[in-house]
Amino acid sequence: MLKVGVDSAQPLVTLLTDFGLVDPFVAEMKAVILSICPEARIVDVSHGVAEFDIRMGAFLLTEAAPSFPLGTVHVAVVDPGVGSRRRSIVVKTKRSIFVGPDNGLLIPAATIEGIVGVFEISNWSMIEREVSSTFHGRDVFAPVAAHIACGHRPEEYGPSISDYVPSPFHDPTLDEKGVTCEILHVDRFGNLATNLTQAHLTHLRAGIGQEVTLSTGRRRIHARVVRTFSDLHRNEVGLMLGSHGFLEVACRESDAAKRLRIRRGSVVRVSGC
Amino acid sequence: MLKVGVDSAQPLVTLLTDFGLVDPFVAEMKAVILSICPEARIVDVSHGVAEFDIRMGAFLLTEAAPSFPLGTVHVAVVDPGVGSRRRSIVVKTKRSIFVGPDNGLLIPAATIEGIVGVFEISNWSMIEREVSSTFHGRDVFAPVAAHIACGHRPEEYGPSISDYVPSPFHDPTLDEKGVTCEILHVDRFGNLATNLTQAHLTHLRAGIGQEVTLSTGRRRIHARVVRTFSDLHRNEVGLMLGSHGFLEVACRESDAAKRLRIRRGSVVRVSGC
Amino acid sequence: MLKVGVDSAQPLVTLLTDFGLVDPFVAEMKAVILSICPEARIVDVSHGVAEFDIRMGAFLLTEAAPSFPLGTVHVAVVDPGVGSRRRSIVVKTKRSIFVGPDNGLLIPAATIEGIVGVFEISNWSMIEREVSSTFHGRDVFAPVAAHIACGHRPEEYGPSISDYVPSPFHDPTLDEKGVTCEILHVDRFGNLATNLTQAHLTHLRAGIGQEVTLSTGRRRIHARVVRTFSDLHRNEVGLMLGSHGFLEVACRESDAAKRLRIRRGSVVRVSGC
Repeated sequence: MLKVGVDSAQPLVTLLTDFGLVDPFVAEMKAVILSICPEARIVDVSHGVAEFDIRMGAFLLTEAAPSFPLGTVHVAVVDPGVGSRRRSIVVKTKRSIFVGPDNGLLIPAATIEGIVGVFEISNWSMIEREVSSTFHGRDVFAPVAAHIACGHRPEEYGPSISDYVPSPFHDPTLDEKGVTCEILHVDRFGNLATNLTQAHLTHLRAGIGQEVTLSTGRRRIHARVVRTFSDLHRNEVGLMLGSHGFLEVACRESDAAKRLRIRRGSVVRVSGC
Repeated sequence: MLKVGVDSAQPLVTLLTDFGLVDPFVAEMKAVILSICPEARIVDVSHGVAEFDIRMGAFLLTEAAPSFPLGTVHVAVVDPGVGSRRRSIVVKTKRSIFVGPDNGLLIPAATIEGIVGVFEISNWSMIEREVSSTFHGRDVFAPVAAHIACGHRPEEYGPSISDYVPSPFHDPTLDEKGVTCEILHVDRFGNLATNLTQAHLTHLRAGIGQEVTLSTGRRRIHARVVRTFSDLHRNEVGLMLGSHGFLEVACRESDAAKRLRIRRGSVVRVSGC
Repeated sequence: MLKVGVDSAQPLVTLLTDFGLVDPFVAEMKAVILSICPEARIVDVSHGVAEFDIRMGAFLLTEAAPSFPLGTVHVAVVDPGVGSRRRSIVVKTKRSIFVGPDNGLLIPAATIEGIVGVFEISNWSMIEREVSSTFHGRDVFAPVAAHIACGHRPEEYGPSISDYVPSPFHDPTLDEKGVTCEILHVDRFGNLATNLTQAHLTHLRAGIGQEVTLSTGRRRIHARVVRTFSDLHRNEVGLMLGSHGFLEVACRESDAAKRLRIRRGSVVRVSGC
C-alpha cells in the first residue's frame, strides 16, 4: 500500500505551474507549504508552462512524475478557470498523490501510475486559510498538498468522484499503412515529442536503422530510426525512443522543430518508406 | 516577541535579486548561506527583477513577504549603488528580518509588517569574509542573513539608524470624484497591479458589479468591478481585488497590459461612471 | 584529506546544465538524486547555459565553485556527445568532486581547485538504473553524484585516467606592449568577463585610476582601471577586477556589451595608453 508523507522524514512535494519565475507566485506557494509542513522538500518541475496551456502542463508532468520516489505529492496549477465553478481535486495513484484543478491537467500522469481514487476538495475547514478568488495555487492546492505531505489522507478533503475531467490527449490512430500522431511538446533543443511509444514503432515494423516517412501538411520528410542523436549524420532527421518513453523526431545538435517547421500541436503521419 | 533563526530547526531565508538565472550569482549567495548556516532553507522569491529596478523589486517583495512564516529572513539585492557609499541595512519588523542595500528596496514590505528597528551594517569583522567591491549580495547580505538565520541578532551588525532611504512608492491621490494611482507591476498574465486597496474602492463607492472608468492619457476604458477573472465576459475589462490585497485591472484569459497598452509606471485615474 | 558526503549531515550537490527551466529535465535529475540520497541539499548553479556551449558552462562553473564548501559534489551537463563514445568522468579535487561528461566542461573549475584524480565511469552495475541513450544527466551523472554525496568514493566508479579532454580555454598571450585576451562571458548586466586576472594588470603596469586601451577589430576604446562601477562617470568605460577574480570591462548602470558591441568569444587586446 502507498504510504505518503507521514512515514517519510522528508516528504517530497513537486510544483508545476504556468506562473513563470518573475512573479513571486511560486515563492508564495512554497511559503505556505513550508509553514504547514516544514520538513517538506520542494522540487520545481516547471514554471514555464505556456499560460493556460493545460496540455503542455499535462505533458511535462507526465514526463517528470515517473522519476520521483513513491509517496511524492505533485502539485500542478495551470488553471484558467480559477475562481469559477471548476472543482479542485486530489488524485491518489499507486505511486503518488496529485493535487490541482479538475481540468484534465493531472490525469495523464496519474493514469500511467494507476489511479486509485479522485477526491473533490470540499472540506474547506481543513484548509484553515482564507481562500482568494484568483490564487488557488497558494490558497487551496499548496495547503492541501502540505497537509497530505505531512500525513493527512486524500480522503479527508472530500468525497470520491468519478466524473472528473478526462485527459486532454487523444490516442494516436493506427491503420494498416501507418500511424497518425500529434506533436505534444517541443523541448529546449527543438526535439519533437510525439504521443507514440515503442509499441507504435513495432506496429510500423520499423526497427533501428530503418527509414520511415513523416508527413505533415503536404510535406514528406524521411527519417531514420536510431538509438541516439550521435547515430545521426549532420543533416539527417531521426526518429528515436526518447528518455521518457515517447518517440521523438530529432536532429543532431540542431533544432528539429525549426528545421522541419513543425510545432507543438502539429499532426504528423508516420509510415514505412 | 519575534524569535528568529535560533529557535527554529530549519530557519527560512528568501532571496530576491535582479541577477537573473543564467549567471551563477544566486548560486554563490546560496553557497555562502549554506556554508554559514547549513540548516537554512532557502526559497527564491524572484531573480527576474528588471536590472536596477528598485521599485519592481520592492513591489515583488511586498507581494511575497506576507505568506512567509514568522522569523523568516528576507535578503533582497537590487543594488545599482554597490561599492559606493550607499549603506547596507538590516530591518527588523514585527514578523521578520530584511537584509539588503539602503535604497528603499526593503521599506515597503517592512513597513506593512511594522518596522521595529533599522540597523546599518558596519561591524565588518562579524562577516568574516573578504568583501568585493561589486558583489555585496554574496559578500555582505548573504553572510549577514545566514548569521541571523542561525541565531545572531540584527543589533550586533551595527547601530540603529532612522535616516534610511524611504519607500520608493507614492500614495495614490484621492479627490471627490476619484483616485489617481500608478501601475506598480504587470504580472506574467498581463494583469495590472495598482497601488490601490479595498479602501480606495470604498472611497469610489464602487461595489462588485458596478462600472468604473479608467483614464490614462486621453483614453477612457470602462471596467466592471468583479470578484474574479471568470466573472468577466470574453472582451470585458475588470477591476478586482487581487490575491495580494491590491486592486488589479484584468481581462479573462487575455493580457490586459497588451490589450489596453498600459505599462508598469503608467498613471491611471479611476472614477465612477 | 578531503572528506565528502558521508561525513556531512547534509551533503551539497550542485547542478549546472544547458537544459533550461521549461522542460522537466532538471527536476528529473533532482528526483533521482533525492531518491538515492534523501539528505542531499541541491543548489542550481545555472540551467541557462546556451545549448551545447561547453565553454560557457565551463566558465560559469569556474565562477561558482569557489563559493561552495569543502566536499560539495558538482554535477555539470553540457553534453552534445550524449550516447556516443564520449566518456563519463568523476574528477576529484582538493576541495570537491565534479561529475559530468569528458568534454572539457569540468576541467577549468577542477584545475583551479587542484585535480587529485580523474576517474572514468565504467562500473555500470553500481548505478543500479537503466541508462537511456539520450539523458545521461538523469541516468548516469545524477545517480553517481548522489551515491558520492552519500558516501561512495569516486574510485569505485572506474579506473583513473590521464587522457581526459582538457580545458576548452586558451591562456591569454602576453607581449611587451600588452595582453591579448578573450571575452569568456557576458553577464546579465552586460559586463564583459575576460580571461585576465590581476597578474595581467600588473604585467600592463596599470593600477587603479590609470587608462588602458582596448582594441577589438579596428576599434579602440579607452577604459579606466577602477575598483567598482560607481567609480565610473556615466559614459565612461571601466576595467575592474570582478568578484570572481577575472578582469571585467564594464560601464556604470549600462550594458557594456551592447554599448561597445563586444560579444562572448570576441578577442580583445589590452594595452597601456
